[in-house]
Amino acid sequence: MSNTRIASYVEENAARFIDELKALVRIPSVSTLHEHKGDVRQAAEFLVAQLREQVGMNIVELVETAGQPLVYAEHLGAPGKPTILIYGHYDVQPADPVELWRTPPFEPTVEGEDLRGRGAVDDKGPMFATIKALETLMRVEGALPVNVKVLIEGEEESGGESIEAYVKAHPERLQADCVLVLDTGMVERGVPTISYGLRGIAYAEIVARGASQDLHSGVYGGIAPNPLQTLAWVLTDLKGRDSRVNLPGLYEMMQPLAPKEQAALARQSKLQERELMTSGGLSVLPGEEGFSVAERAAARPTFEVHGIRGGFTGEGAKTVIPAEATAKVSLRLVPGQKPETVLELLARRVRELASPGIALEVRPLHGGDGALLPLDSPVLKIAAAALEEEFGREVAFMREGGSIPVVALFDSVLHAPIVMLGFSLPDDNVHAPNEKFYLPNYYAAIRTVATFLKRL
Amino acid sequence: MSNTRIASYVEENAARFIDELKALVRIPSVSTLHEHKGDVRQAAEFLVAQLREQVGMNIVELVETAGQPLVYAEHLGAPGKPTILIYGHYDVQPADPVELWRTPPFEPTVEGEDLRGRGAVDDKGPMFATIKALETLMRVEGALPVNVKVLIEGEEESGGESIEAYVKAHPERLQADCVLVLDTGMVERGVPTISYGLRGIAYAEIVARGASQDLHSGVYGGIAPNPLQTLAWVLTDLKGRDSRVNLPGLYEMMQPLAPKEQAALARQSKLQERELMTSGGLSVLPGEEGFSVAERAAARPTFEVHGIRGGFTGEGAKTVIPAEATAKVSLRLVPGQKPETVLELLARRVRELASPGIALEVRPLHGGDGALLPLDSPVLKIAAAALEEEFGREVAFMREGGSIPVVALFDSVLHAPIVMLGFSLPDDNVHAPNEKFYLPNYYAAIRTVATFLKRL
Repeated sequence: MSNTRIASYVEENAARFIDELKALVRIPSVSTLHEHKGDVRQAAEFLVAQLREQVGMNIVELVETAGQPLVYAEHLGAPGKPTILIYGHYDVQPADPVELWRTPPFEPTVEGEDLRGRGAVDDKGPMFATIKALETLMRVEGALPVNVKVLIEGEEESGGESIEAYVKAHPERLQADCVLVLDTGMVERGVPTISYGLRGIAYAEIVARGASQDLHSGVYGGIAPNPLQTLAWVLTDLKGRDSRVNLPGLYEMMQPLAPKEQAALARQSKLQERELMTSGGLSVLPGEEGFSVAERAAARPTFEVHGIRGGFTGEGAKTVIPAEATAKVSLRLVPGQKPETVLELLARRVRELASPGIALEVRPLHGGDGALLPLDSPVLKIAAAALEEEFGREVAFMREGGSIPVVALFDSVLHAPIVMLGFSLPDDNVHAPNEKFYLPNYYAAIRTVATFLKRL
Repeated sequence: MSNTRIASYVEENAARFIDELKALVRIPSVSTLHEHKGDVRQAAEFLVAQLREQVGMNIVELVETAGQPLVYAEHLGAPGKPTILIYGHYDVQPADPVELWRTPPFEPTVEGEDLRGRGAVDDKGPMFATIKALETLMRVEGALPVNVKVLIEGEEESGGESIEAYVKAHPERLQADCVLVLDTGMVERGVPTISYGLRGIAYAEIVARGASQDLHSGVYGGIAPNPLQTLAWVLTDLKGRDSRVNLPGLYEMMQPLAPKEQAALARQSKLQERELMTSGGLSVLPGEEGFSVAERAAARPTFEVHGIRGGFTGEGAKTVIPAEATAKVSLRLVPGQKPETVLELLARRVRELASPGIALEVRPLHGGDGALLPLDSPVLKIAAAALEEEFGREVAFMREGGSIPVVALFDSVLHAPIVMLGFSLPDDNVHAPNEKFYLPNYYAAIRTVATFLKRL
């Protein structure tokens, strides 16, 4: 009955909910790029205004940090009822390559049932859905059914140091009976999904330095060290054609995967493979032999190159031997693999791989722990029931290949069950051009969160 | 005696000669970048005006081509005397990385005895010195002592297709008793140098294509093909840590180096090594084992990576697996190795190196033949004498590691001896930031060319 009222409120306000989300997506809050510092702050202020004016929470703060501001809010008006901490992030990935977007990345555009724009689904859409769920409950019920704390960060895409410091400094303020996170994906469209595992991440730059300046290959070809060539050797040594990561100690650190879970992942694989190939425009999913796609995508460590800078990359020909070249790389990590330790292994190994005349350096950019959450908490069952009611299908439980470092921190500091409800689709182009949010999932997320909170 | 008059004229007009060269360097005639098409043309027009008004040659033409215009001039006023064809190029390399220049690349700046600016020494300075030599002779002698043809191109840095077509189409127009080229280097400051060998070049892009769009390494790490990783494998397969170029057939095509020349190169090596290390800011000159530095720098084929494009190379972290990545590479070639054949070998080999899910393509950008010129022509002796008189030291004969494709063409089409007088210094930063021309070499070049022409 009151579910009907929730649904009606969402339906009546659907147009405004989209307009507000568009206003948020319009703010280019790219946390990794210094020139967007003002935009990042503006996005935080937008959320403060929403939580204060639209939801009407008792306490709403813009928390200054050494980096990007945090948004914190609380409304503890349900004595005797459980307390929930809702997490999300308002920062987004850079938009490049901008030329591949069909519409400008920060001009949110509705096309069919999708809202396209950088950050639409990662994580502005799902995060904002939790705020709209709170608003819905306030307006429909006149109050929130549980005690609510909200913590939204602006550095999820660039290290998350500030929220880490804040959580460690204020464990009592953030104390809760459960944590809700909307920043993960669905197995496929229409299949309600709860993620119980996240990979960790270790991100670094490998810098190769040769001559004191760029050289002409006519004069120096064959005699000068070439930093780009050395990077090619190093990247090949770190990961050969068999896709094994050659970082001594890396695989030894892994917590072994239980045979039961390995089998479950293998079964899940069939479903995922088709979807992943279609979404990525791929005809094969190559990688380590002897592991299913689902296992490789979520339960194995990886090494990926994200970009190589150095030399001439413009139109035409320039015969330069660059003085310096840099590769951006990251490893996704599974339980047992600590980012700091892995970054040390990487630095040590890369130093061993230097070639005559080239100095190699590993510059760590950021790291975050993975997480593996228990599947037997009562709140997870309530969340699953709310999801199943919304989608009319059984919930799929999956391990996510991506990383949300703060989840591991919540797990270790707050000791409360964490619920990760997925609303992004495999074809939503997360971190890629033409990122989008499937709008039916926006409304589904608002309704599901509202229902979940009512039932807690 | 008339040498004194040449020297006096050069001295009296030194300030104007610098101003004119600065005006030429100021024009950003970067032939490989489409946006500079107008500038390239402007540089050609500048030379047309110089040859017409300052030198006063009989015929001066801006020759339209499919690419950048050629400048052609002739003054055949010395019947019974030999005819000389003077070659040069007015186009320049791109200026990037622009941020490493101490002064803007196209704002020519005199500092001490150097004129700094892109193209100052490659090849605007030396090429313009030949024009100033003609002017000097005209003014001092009232006429040119020999018949002179001038052909200056605007595509030396970007393939040279237009001059190739022109030379093949007009061999009779260009017929000459010798060809003069000022576009090579000196062994070291103060050592007059004639180059008798040039390496050829084969320049290409290796394109690796994976997914239909950029992917997120959280979702696709470990299962999607990564074009940057495949490029690393391919570049490593093409050249391993032993610096051998693994292109089956490449070394087999080489004309063997005579033991006498190999020994001469080994002797020259000592002198060059110190200079090359100082100029490049290098403490080692790594490369193929078993060959002297001078031999590796000029008489061995090479494989160099000039740039890798793809993925995210901005500030901070972006966890993208790019859909596509491109490496710019070139091989320097020695006599016997035809660029077209080498580009075919490269394309064939790269196709074999593909990895699952990655399509590899070799896109040839340009090629040019090397040259090995006889050392016994009478004109070479006259040129050497003029150089020795100017510098007061014995001439060094060297093989140049760089490429001037049109020289091989002149050799095969015109069958006239070619004289390459070097005026660039090892520390002139050819093709690199802070390119400069050592101004005493500018005046030396003008005087030497004038003297050489008088004695022909």
